[in-house]
Amino acid sequence: MGVPDYIEDLPLWRNEFEYFYPVTVRFSETDAFGHLNNTTTFVYFEHGRISFFKQIGLMQDWTKKETEAIPVTADLHCDYMRQVYFDEELQIGLKLNRVGNSSMDIHYMAVNGSGDICFTGRGSIVQVSAKTGKSIPWTKEEKDRLESHMPRR
Amino acid sequence: MGVPDYIEDLPLWRNEFEYFYPVTVRFSETDAFGHLNNTTTFVYFEHGRISFFKQIGLMQDWTKKETEAIPVTADLHCDYMRQVYFDEELQIGLKLNRVGNSSMDIHYMAVNGSGDICFTGRGSIVQVSAKTGKSIPWTKEEKDRLESHMPRR
Amino acid sequence: MGVPDYIEDLPLWRNEFEYFYPVTVRFSETDAFGHLNNTTTFVYFEHGRISFFKQIGLMQDWTKKETEAIPVTADLHCDYMRQVYFDEELQIGLKLNRVGNSSMDIHYMAVNGSGDICFTGRGSIVQVSAKTGKSIPWTKEEKDRLESHMPRR
Amino acid sequence: MGVPDYIEDLPLWRNEFEYFYPVTVRFSETDAFGHLNNTTTFVYFEHGRISFFKQIGLMQDWTKKETEAIPVTADLHCDYMRQVYFDEELQIGLKLNRVGNSSMDIHYMAVNGSGDICFTGRGSIVQVSAKTGKSIPWTKEEKDRLESHMPRR
Repeated sequence: MGVPDYIEDLPLWRNEFEYFYPVTVRFSETDAFGHLNNTTTFVYFEHGRISFFKQIGLMQDWTKKETEAIPVTADLHCDYMRQVYFDEELQIGLKLNRVGNSSMDIHYMAVNGSGDICFTGRGSIVQVSAKTGKSIPWTKEEKDRLESHMPRR
Repeated sequence: MGVPDYIEDLPLWRNEFEYFYPVTVRFSETDAFGHLNNTTTFVYFEHGRISFFKQIGLMQDWTKKETEAIPVTADLHCDYMRQVYFDEELQIGLKLNRVGNSSMDIHYMAVNGSGDICFTGRGSIVQVSAKTGKSIPWTKEEKDRLESHMPRR
Repeated sequence: MGVPDYIEDLPLWRNEFEYFYPVTVRFSETDAFGHLNNTTTFVYFEHGRISFFKQIGLMQDWTKKETEAIPVTADLHCDYMRQVYFDEELQIGLKLNRVGNSSMDIHYMAVNGSGDICFTGRGSIVQVSAKTGKSIPWTKEEKDRLESHMPRR
Repeated sequence: MGVPDYIEDLPLWRNEFEYFYPVTVRFSETDAFGHLNNTTTFVYFEHGRISFFKQIGLMQDWTKKETEAIPVTADLHCDYMRQVYFDEELQIGLKLNRVGNSSMDIHYMAVNGSGDICFTGRGSIVQVSAKTGKSIPWTKEEKDRLESHMPRR
């Protein structure tokens, strides 16, 4: 299995992660093959993503009752490199790869206690109106805030 | 393991179920011990319960935007009698055991293809206001409708 | 809603908890009514229970390849006292209420950041053979170990 | 949002699906934004995939106790085109896009009751040894069987 096409240079790519969220694999997240079920990596991505959004103040905006703006997932990708088992402690790394007008592209990396990458991923989020479903551009302030969290390249 | 205390006479109790909802055990619902994870029975209970509420017209009321009434779970109980495995086809039986002023007590029974009871359960639902959290009594029409779905005893 | 029947004296009962496991409510664990879905409390119970079993050395025994003994859930109960929302940080308290020959009865309590009890529960675990399904009694050493973790009464 | 890069010609691509698996959106699969949570599409993909594997006889091989061959997910992708709500009935279409020596590439499409595509996806499965983690090539018979299920192109 080669490197996924959203990763140009793996050591450089890995080095850009600054935000990490810890998770411990729950028993209910394993399956009858004895390992982490493939669907759970996306639960970890979402949980880490929201934790990241909270840190930069976006989640607070989205869960306010008076706003109609909500983030929706446009696409999601996961590449599984190493099997993960019950009770492993993983660090889920997140970084902004690109900020669009009303969207952002986020990269993900799960690392185990030995420093091995277990799975990677990427996905776009779009800010839309909960009423109309149309995309809602970031304000200048939001875009600046997001871009300040991009890796320096 | 004896009979749970919400079941007085098992054959009579079993015989009162008239509404059944079919489920097939998903792979992601198993765990590393190779069987159905214990947390999933409550997913089946909820799914069957909502299907039952739809059939009697209550779910449609609760998901209307203009109502503040929502059903909340007051308690839930599950007794596990027989292990369940990937891909088994179960019938989830539901019946109303009691209708209160703003609540109802529901009994559950999961039966496999051989007619064996795999797990049973019970739980109360209360209708509350999403705004205040206070209970909202059934209307006369709703209470009559619910009682018409009680087993004849 | 009164106190569940497995709680005799609420302040005394609450005071007996010594082991706590922290969880933060994930977005994927909420539902369209905006609160924690009722099925997730059992995921927290299981996760806390396993964490407790690990602390006292039982989980390590059960996940060894060479053993046929596995813990199965005999019954589970949850009483919902207070709605819980996205991102709340809860402490899941666990205590052994009774140790049988091959079983144990565990009590659960989820407390929010303000010290309010959000939900409580109880449930029995039985140690069985993965091959025969028959119960396997605790060894003397295991029973002593379990009993040393009972609250002093 | 354009067409994902694994779809060359959307009408042709759509037309190649012959196997469909029905799912109804469960309440516990929604989230506090009121729609299907993004992590659940992968649960549907897995469930449909296994149902497809059963139909062609592969799943039966993999769940036999005496085999060490298990299917693992190498990558997964989902593109979300349309929001999905509680209780919607979806058809999950699956097709084999490519059969490798020990792998296969599967495409997915979820269609609602009006015939609208709600989400699409793709992902590779690799057959590996549960003991060594090394890939296990398909037998000639298995490869022929898989290829007989490829769309004619």
